[in-house]
Amino acid sequence: METEKLPALRVTEQGRSKFEDIVATEFSLTISLNNQELVTLLCSPTKLDYLAIGFLSSEGLINSKDEIRKISIDDERGIARVTTKEAGEPARDISFRRFIGSSGGKGTNASTVAGASRTEIKSHLQVSAPAVLALMEEFVQRSKVFRATGGVHSAALCDANKILIFSEDIGRHNAIDKIFGECILRDVPTDDRIIITSGRVSSEILLKVAKRSIPILISKSAPTNLGVKLAADLGITLIGFVRGKRMNVYSCDWRVVPDGE
Amino acid sequence: METEKLPALRVTEQGRSKFEDIVATEFSLTISLNNQELVTLLCSPTKLDYLAIGFLSSEGLINSKDEIRKISIDDERGIARVTTKEAGEPARDISFRRFIGSSGGKGTNASTVAGASRTEIKSHLQVSAPAVLALMEEFVQRSKVFRATGGVHSAALCDANKILIFSEDIGRHNAIDKIFGECILRDVPTDDRIIITSGRVSSEILLKVAKRSIPILISKSAPTNLGVKLAADLGITLIGFVRGKRMNVYSCDWRVVPDGE
Repeated sequence: METEKLPALRVTEQGRSKFEDIVATEFSLTISLNNQELVTLLCSPTKLDYLAIGFLSSEGLINSKDEIRKISIDDERGIARVTTKEAGEPARDISFRRFIGSSGGKGTNASTVAGASRTEIKSHLQVSAPAVLALMEEFVQRSKVFRATGGVHSAALCDANKILIFSEDIGRHNAIDKIFGECILRDVPTDDRIIITSGRVSSEILLKVAKRSIPILISKSAPTNLGVKLAADLGITLIGFVRGKRMNVYSCDWRVVPDGE
Repeated sequence: METEKLPALRVTEQGRSKFEDIVATEFSLTISLNNQELVTLLCSPTKLDYLAIGFLSSEGLINSKDEIRKISIDDERGIARVTTKEAGEPARDISFRRFIGSSGGKGTNASTVAGASRTEIKSHLQVSAPAVLALMEEFVQRSKVFRATGGVHSAALCDANKILIFSEDIGRHNAIDKIFGECILRDVPTDDRIIITSGRVSSEILLKVAKRSIPILISKSAPTNLGVKLAADLGITLIGFVRGKRMNVYSCDWRVVPDGE
């Protein structure tokens, strides 16, 4: 269901051959909060309840599991209906002010990006450089859909030794939202934890991770300048380009210790 | 301005060293149409007029240069103000129905994705497999910001022999919108042309490209299943995974001829 086999033509210097390629499935999920349609996400069709709750949490529309009255997923029509115990602010206004991200799209309000609610993360968590490399290696190994299709992003919640929750999605924001949605619904704490992402790290990703008090963010890819600056402001250790046996630490590098100390 | 040097710590097996890394600049651009703020894009701070017009065109809010009365870019505050000769439909409603993309985010209306206005592209343009490889090679060569930062996407408009317009942006949708905005403002025709993108090809990218009647779409990366299906429906030749000396053709493969015929 996460992938589909489709006929394609492979063209190489040796010639042409028909084959069946495995491509990532793209699914359209409309999220409705208290009977108001908020947004339609293009996503991979897995963990849709986690995605809906993670999205609503990242947008600041839900803060805890206690607020949720009911979640129902209509797989046929691609709708996630969430109702809360108390109806919040009007959705229309939120949608209107939505950011559309660089290449992640999920968005945050202008006020958030402007820094209305930046709280520095105080966690004393440290991780050794070899542990970062080992986590990334496990992360890449687990990216089954990526290896099959080359067309999805992954995200993971870890402690300093192992991956606790793993997700894949055609969207890098969705992959992270699925993790946080699962944390909320399954009561998994995120303090003193690590997030790994396959994707590039823009300001939006930092704000999302900061909202869950995550002190360390590890990426296989590049950060933007604003991603680096926000990480420093928020007290988050941002590690980028973790590839092979090396990495770049862009902020709060005291959390990365040389060896398994 | 597209990049910034920031201090970072490189950690390898050999040890740690401070260095200055070059990262992509992330800029926040709010697009206002007829004095209504529509959206805020996270983007690279270049060709902002092209980005604004390309975005409005992709969203179906502007169809030609003739409709535009004035474009003014406020670099300081990050605002692109566009006024048209006749004010269109109310922005609030458009924004409310916006899609938030998988990892591209720019979005289209549900009605468009549902297929309200699918016209098959009839172009007889063909391209040889060696020409596709040569175009991709030139494309990768020109991606200066990517080579410096690893953190941006590129897009190009080409004919069967060369790149005509090239752009880079932290967002894969923005990079394509910059191309189309430039085409609109500089009266560059897009019929019988080719688009190259560094990014993954989802349904949104197909709809954007179809809107400009582009018959051939070439990507370095993977398509989604819906991207492939839309390409077939729209009569667009979709070529993915153009790497080294090989490529996969997912739809309308009659446009890819073996040699320079």
